[in-house]
Amino acid sequence: MNYCSHCGNPVVLSIPPGDDRNRHVCSRCERIHYQNPRIIAGCIAVHDDRILLCSRAIEPRQGLWTLPGGFLENGETVEQGAIRESLEEANARLCEPRLYAMFDIPRIHQVYIFYRARLADLDFSPGQESLETVLFSEADIPWNQLAFPVIDRVLRHYFEDRMQIEDRRLRDFPVRTGAVP
Amino acid sequence: MNYCSHCGNPVVLSIPPGDDRNRHVCSRCERIHYQNPRIIAGCIAVHDDRILLCSRAIEPRQGLWTLPGGFLENGETVEQGAIRESLEEANARLCEPRLYAMFDIPRIHQVYIFYRARLADLDFSPGQESLETVLFSEADIPWNQLAFPVIDRVLRHYFEDRMQIEDRRLRDFPVRTGAVP
Repeated sequence: MNYCSHCGNPVVLSIPPGDDRNRHVCSRCERIHYQNPRIIAGCIAVHDDRILLCSRAIEPRQGLWTLPGGFLENGETVEQGAIRESLEEANARLCEPRLYAMFDIPRIHQVYIFYRARLADLDFSPGQESLETVLFSEADIPWNQLAFPVIDRVLRHYFEDRMQIEDRRLRDFPVRTGAVP
Repeated sequence: MNYCSHCGNPVVLSIPPGDDRNRHVCSRCERIHYQNPRIIAGCIAVHDDRILLCSRAIEPRQGLWTLPGGFLENGETVEQGAIRESLEEANARLCEPRLYAMFDIPRIHQVYIFYRARLADLDFSPGQESLETVLFSEADIPWNQLAFPVIDRVLRHYFEDRMQIEDRRLRDFPVRTGAVP
């Protein structure tokens, strides 16, 4: 950040009164421009024992597999964002979304929030950011071709929890949390 | 937003290629300036059957009661942000934080994320944004003097869940979600 988005004059890094860290402050109008982490909202879309993955049509990690998800937009809830991204990236209509996981990646100022949801129908297809959209059983997940470590983390939690529910060691899915380096 | 924070030239509202909504786009360098919801991280800090509230020293809602919390900063996890805010606003040291609630306020582009945590000691006191810091039992909560509707919502969930745990209708605290108009 070099210029004030309000008045167009240069910003300087300084610690505002009462604050304890450097902010971008306008040298003229004195507005403080805070920068904060962003939320990525996504879904584990389930049909029977399979889940929906998308192969990425865009960089970074073009061709690798991911869960549908993307940046939360102003004016929507996290759940709405997760549902919207599934529709945009996989033309997938989802129902019964349930919060499932929250993973921080503080290094890149991101918080990933995932829902479990049921596919309302099997009429999904690649959106413009996807090359393919495929339902995978656990045995067929392309573990070595996942786009991001956070996707690996959330999928391993999901299948572990699902097995524990089948074995009656868990009553229901918990909400998983953690941080990715 | 009027000016590009990168090059200082005017921005215009337009829909970038492949996008579906208006963004602030620089008229010169063509950078797209996305605006996204922000996270407020907070804590229900517990000692025995009481919880810690702070009366606000600052506007908005000066003098009214709230849970310690504030905007998540770049470089920290949501949990770290909740712990930090409790230290800043109430000089309260917390342990055993557990994710408890996520409430969206899409109208103002905010997502509130609360943890349950135990007070490590009773040596808390008002930080610079608080007038008073007080442990309240459920019967003494100043329900008519809470600063924000989301605080009312999360506290009512908390005491309801706690009662259900005492009555053995719940095994443990769930993670509560919802949206506030």
